[in-house]
Amino acid sequence: MAKHKKEDFEDFGLGEKSYSKGYRSLNKDGSFNIEKTNISFLERLNFFHSLVTMKWSHFFGIVALTYFLVNTFFATIYSLIGIEHLTGIHGLTPFEQFMEAFFFSAQTITTLGYGQVAPLGLLANIVAATESLLGLLFFALATGLFYGRFSKPISKIKFSQKAIIAPYQDINGFMFRLVNPQKNELLDVEINVSVSMKRKNSELRDFHILDLERDNVRFFPSMWTVVHPIDKNSPLYELNKEDYFEKDFEFIAMLKAFDESSGQMVYSRSSYKPEEIEWGQKFVYAAKRHNGKLLVDVGRINESKKAELN
Amino acid sequence: MAKHKKEDFEDFGLGEKSYSKGYRSLNKDGSFNIEKTNISFLERLNFFHSLVTMKWSHFFGIVALTYFLVNTFFATIYSLIGIEHLTGIHGLTPFEQFMEAFFFSAQTITTLGYGQVAPLGLLANIVAATESLLGLLFFALATGLFYGRFSKPISKIKFSQKAIIAPYQDINGFMFRLVNPQKNELLDVEINVSVSMKRKNSELRDFHILDLERDNVRFFPSMWTVVHPIDKNSPLYELNKEDYFEKDFEFIAMLKAFDESSGQMVYSRSSYKPEEIEWGQKFVYAAKRHNGKLLVDVGRINESKKAELN
Amino acid sequence: MAKHKKEDFEDFGLGEKSYSKGYRSLNKDGSFNIEKTNISFLERLNFFHSLVTMKWSHFFGIVALTYFLVNTFFATIYSLIGIEHLTGIHGLTPFEQFMEAFFFSAQTITTLGYGQVAPLGLLANIVAATESLLGLLFFALATGLFYGRFSKPISKIKFSQKAIIAPYQDINGFMFRLVNPQKNELLDVEINVSVSMKRKNSELRDFHILDLERDNVRFFPSMWTVVHPIDKNSPLYELNKEDYFEKDFEFIAMLKAFDESSGQMVYSRSSYKPEEIEWGQKFVYAAKRHNGKLLVDVGRINESKKAELN
Amino acid sequence: MAKHKKEDFEDFGLGEKSYSKGYRSLNKDGSFNIEKTNISFLERLNFFHSLVTMKWSHFFGIVALTYFLVNTFFATIYSLIGIEHLTGIHGLTPFEQFMEAFFFSAQTITTLGYGQVAPLGLLANIVAATESLLGLLFFALATGLFYGRFSKPISKIKFSQKAIIAPYQDINGFMFRLVNPQKNELLDVEINVSVSMKRKNSELRDFHILDLERDNVRFFPSMWTVVHPIDKNSPLYELNKEDYFEKDFEFIAMLKAFDESSGQMVYSRSSYKPEEIEWGQKFVYAAKRHNGKLLVDVGRINESKKAELN
Repeated sequence: MAKHKKEDFEDFGLGEKSYSKGYRSLNKDGSFNIEKTNISFLERLNFFHSLVTMKWSHFFGIVALTYFLVNTFFATIYSLIGIEHLTGIHGLTPFEQFMEAFFFSAQTITTLGYGQVAPLGLLANIVAATESLLGLLFFALATGLFYGRFSKPISKIKFSQKAIIAPYQDINGFMFRLVNPQKNELLDVEINVSVSMKRKNSELRDFHILDLERDNVRFFPSMWTVVHPIDKNSPLYELNKEDYFEKDFEFIAMLKAFDESSGQMVYSRSSYKPEEIEWGQKFVYAAKRHNGKLLVDVGRINESKKAELN
Repeated sequence: MAKHKKEDFEDFGLGEKSYSKGYRSLNKDGSFNIEKTNISFLERLNFFHSLVTMKWSHFFGIVALTYFLVNTFFATIYSLIGIEHLTGIHGLTPFEQFMEAFFFSAQTITTLGYGQVAPLGLLANIVAATESLLGLLFFALATGLFYGRFSKPISKIKFSQKAIIAPYQDINGFMFRLVNPQKNELLDVEINVSVSMKRKNSELRDFHILDLERDNVRFFPSMWTVVHPIDKNSPLYELNKEDYFEKDFEFIAMLKAFDESSGQMVYSRSSYKPEEIEWGQKFVYAAKRHNGKLLVDVGRINESKKAELN
Repeated sequence: MAKHKKEDFEDFGLGEKSYSKGYRSLNKDGSFNIEKTNISFLERLNFFHSLVTMKWSHFFGIVALTYFLVNTFFATIYSLIGIEHLTGIHGLTPFEQFMEAFFFSAQTITTLGYGQVAPLGLLANIVAATESLLGLLFFALATGLFYGRFSKPISKIKFSQKAIIAPYQDINGFMFRLVNPQKNELLDVEINVSVSMKRKNSELRDFHILDLERDNVRFFPSMWTVVHPIDKNSPLYELNKEDYFEKDFEFIAMLKAFDESSGQMVYSRSSYKPEEIEWGQKFVYAAKRHNGKLLVDVGRINESKKAELN
Repeated sequence: MAKHKKEDFEDFGLGEKSYSKGYRSLNKDGSFNIEKTNISFLERLNFFHSLVTMKWSHFFGIVALTYFLVNTFFATIYSLIGIEHLTGIHGLTPFEQFMEAFFFSAQTITTLGYGQVAPLGLLANIVAATESLLGLLFFALATGLFYGRFSKPISKIKFSQKAIIAPYQDINGFMFRLVNPQKNELLDVEINVSVSMKRKNSELRDFHILDLERDNVRFFPSMWTVVHPIDKNSPLYELNKEDYFEKDFEFIAMLKAFDESSGQMVYSRSSYKPEEIEWGQKFVYAAKRHNGKLLVDVGRINESKKAELN
C-alpha cells in the first residue's frame, strides 16, 4: 500500500524547494498560492470553467456584449441584403433603418417575433430562419450557464480563525473548529488535515497526514471541533511553539461534504500558520438549549479560554 | 486511524451539555432540533437553497409576485418614455394605457410577442430588447428551479414507528424495519446507527456507533430489518429498559442510497427514544408469495409479535 | 464489522420464506419479481419517477393529452369572457370561435404568439398573461423530462445467457461473462455476486456473498469473465449439479459502473438458476487481432467448449 | 478478498492472446485500441452518447440538417392542405409559395411566430399547433445537448511524454509526471498504474497492479510525480531495459478526479511502452518562487537530467 506518511515533496507544491517564513501554499480563504506558466493557448482554454466561475458582473457584461455584437452583425447582414426586404421598416435615414434592422434581429434571436417588422423574400427569410436557430442555441448556453452559476453549491463553511493546542484526555491536541452557518444540510462530511514543515538543515520540506480523533461525520448540524491527538505517533510530538516557527509549519485542512439541496459534493479548505495557533487554550462551548431546540451561536466559533496543557 | 467509538461530544450537538428527558436532537421525520444564531446576513444568504426547498405554494407565490412586479416596473418605464412609442395602444385613460403597457411587457418578457402592440422609436425599442434578454434569463431561472424542485428525489423510505429488542440467534438484538413504498429502485443502500446516552453523574453525553449485522444492501426491493446484535462489545450490553430511560437514550439512524430514476443520492434519517422501543417482540414477516411474485405488505411494517428474549 | 456472509433472510425478499422450484427473485433482464401492496396513495405518489420511467409512447401520450386539455380549458375561459375580447377571430359559429380560441391558447402557451389573434381588454389580457407564464413552467417540465429521459444512461451490458462451472487454476470456478456492446466507456466497474439457497429441511433460505477473483475493473473495453473460485471457503465447495437443483440455487449478479458520456453511474443486474448453469465447460476466447486493433466479437459471448473439471 | 495481483488475462483485452511488438492496448491519448464487432443494431444504438461525443462540426451539421428536413416536411404538409390556408402568403409560383410555407414552418417550430404568415382554418391550425409542440420538444433536445456538450468536463491533464527509471531513496523507481494546465481545480485525484507483460514462452500476458508511493492526492494544484518503488515485491524487480523490450511491457495509467467547476468526475488515461521509458534520469524541479507565489512551469513537464541508478 502507498506509504504516504513521510515523503520528499520537492515538487508537489506543498513541500516545495524553498520558501521564506510567511509564505504559505494555501491561503485562509481556500485559494492556492500557485500560478501556472508556460501553457499553450489550447491547453489553457476552458470556456465553460471561465464562464461559470467569473464574477457575476463579468458574466452579465459578456452576455450583454455578445447580445449587442450579434445583433449588430445581423443588422449589417439585413442592411446588405437590402432594407426593403424587411417589411414594416419606418425609418428614413440609413441609421434609423439600421437600428430597426438591429431591433428586428433582437426580436428574432430571442424568438420574441412581434412581426411588426418581418422578412421578405428568400434571402432575408433564410437569414432570419438561421438567426432564430442560432438564437435558440446561444440562449440555451446563456440560460444554462446562468442557472448553472446560480445553482452552484457555495460552501460557506467557517473555519475558526485560530487553531489551538489544547489539553485532550491525558495528552494534548491540535484543534480547530468548523461550523456551517447556512440552512442547507451538509452530509457525509470528511476532513483531512496535513502539516508541511521545513526539514532540518535543508530547503526541502516534509509533508505529513495527521491522524484525527474523527475524520468524518454523517451529518453536520452544529459545530465540530476537529482534533489531532498529539500522541507519540504524531509528527508534532514533543515540539513546542518555537519549533513550529522554526520549521515554518503550515497546517492544511481539506473538507468535502455532500450538499443535500443541490445534490452535489462541496469542497472547502483552509490553512493555519504558526502565528495563527494559540497554545494552552480550549474552545468555549457555543451552544445552549432554548425552547426545546439547541441554539448554536455561530458568531462565537472563535471563542476560547485558557486551559493548562498536559 | 480515528478512534470514534466513544468520545466526549460536548459540542457536537448530539452529545450536548444537558438536556432534560423528552428532548431529542433528531425528530422522527428526519429534521434536526437545532437552530443556528448570530449569523451575518451574507453568511446566511443562499437563494438557491431557499428557492429549492420552500413549499410549493411559496415558490409559485414568489414567481407570480416577481412576474407582476417586473411587468409593473417595465410598464412604468414605457409610460415614462411615452405611450405614443408603443403602437397599437387603444386605451384612452392613463390607467388603460398603463395596463396595455403592462401586458405588452408581459408579452415581451415571456417572448410571446403577439405584435399587436410593438415598440416604436429608439428608446422604446432599446427597453424592449433589454426586457426580452432579461426575460429569457429570469425564466431560465424560474423554469430551472421548477424542474429542479420537481425532479428532486424525495426519499419516502418508511422507518418502523417503533424499534424492538428481540431475540437474535443466541443473544438479543436492537432492531427496526425499513421499507421503500415507491416504485423507484434504491441501490447501494447504506445505513449507520448510533446511540447517544447521558453519562453517569454528568451533564455530558456519550455517542456510540453501533455495529450492525449488515450495514449495506446492494438493492432494496423489499423490507429490511436492521439489526444491532447486543453482544459483549455493544454499548447496550446488559442494560435493561430502565437504563435506557435513565440514560435518556436516543438512537439515530442515517441512511443513504442511490436513486436509480433521478441518478442522485438520497438521504433519510430517523430517531428512536426509549418510549419508542418495545422489549420482547419480534417483527412479523410481512410478505407472501402470490402468482409467482413476492407481495410485500408495506402497511404491516410495524407489525410485531411477542417473543422471549435470550 | 458487519458479519454478512451467512444470515437468516426470512424477510429480505431474497431469502424469503418459501418458494417452489422455478421461482426467482430477480429475472434475467434485471427486473425484480417483487410487488409492494397496501401502500397509501401519498406514499406511492412519485410523478417524477413515473414520468421518467414510463414508455416513450405513454410519455408522448401524456404530453399531447395535457396540451390538448389545457388548451380546451383556456379556450373555455376565453369563450366565457366573451369571444369579442379576442381580436382577429373570423369564425361565425360558436364552434368555429371556440376552435379559434383553442388555437389562440396553443399559440400563447407555447409563446409562439403569432398575433393574428390577440387579447383585448383587461380580463382577456390577464388570462393570456397568466397562460403564458403557466405555459413557460409547463414546458420547462415537459422539455426537461424529455431531455432527462433521452439522456438517461441505459446500460446495455450483456451477461452471458449461461454461467459455467469450469476448471480454474487447480480447482474449479463458477463463471459467467460480460460485455459492453456500446461505444460509451464504462469505468470503475464493480460487480458483486451472491447466491441464495434453500436450507436443509427448512423453508428458510441462506444468502451468501461470493468471493470473486476480481470484483472491479478500472475500465471495461472488452469482455470480462467473472470468476468465483470454488475453494474450501466457498459455499459451493463440494456441491454438485444435483445439489444446486436440490437447494434451488439462485445466483444474483449486481454490477455498477461510471458511464463516461453521461457522467452518471449505471447499474445492471442479472440472475442464474441451476438450469442456466453448464458444468465442465470453458468460455471460448472471443477476440482476435486485426490491423493493429483487438476485435472483440460480441456475438460470441456465450460460446464455450468442453473442459474437464478438477 | 479478490486476488488480483497476478492473473491470466487471456480475454480481458489487456492480456490478450498474442500481439507483436509495437502493439498497444491503450494509446497515449487515452483511446483504446479495441473494436467491437458482431453487435446487433439495437445493442449498438445509443443516440445520446453519439450526439454528445461527436465532433462539433458533425453536431452542428446534424442540427442544421434536421432543422432543414423538418421544415421541408411541414412545408409539404401545409402545401398539401392548401396554401390558401396560410394568410399573408405573397408568392405567386408554387415554388415561392412552398418557400413561404417553409419559412412559416421555421417561425412556428422555433416559436418565433412573427404572425405575418398565420394559419387559417381547422386543419392548418391543427398542424401549426402540433408543430409548435414538437418544436419545443425538439429544441429542448438540441439545446440540452448543446449545453451538455459545452459543459462536459474535458480533462486536459498532461502526462509526461516519457516515463523514467530514477533513483528513489535507496532503490529505484518507475516514475512519470502529471500536471493540470487549466484553472479548474481537480480534487480527490486518484491514480492507478498497471503493467502488462508477455509471459515467458507463451502468448499469454500477465497483468499486474503496481504499488505507488502515493495513489491519491486531495488537491492537485501543481505537478505530481507518480512513483512506483521497484522494491522486492515489485514485478519490475531486477529487470533491466532489455527485459522490458523482451517482454513487450505496457504501463497503463488511469486517473480520476473531481472537477470542482462542473461538479463531475473526470477520467484520464495514458500508456508507456519500453521505447518511451528513459533509464537513469531524474525529473527536473519545474517550479520557482516569484512574488510570493509558486510559479509552476507547465512546459517543462518532460524535463529530466541524468541520475545514477541505485
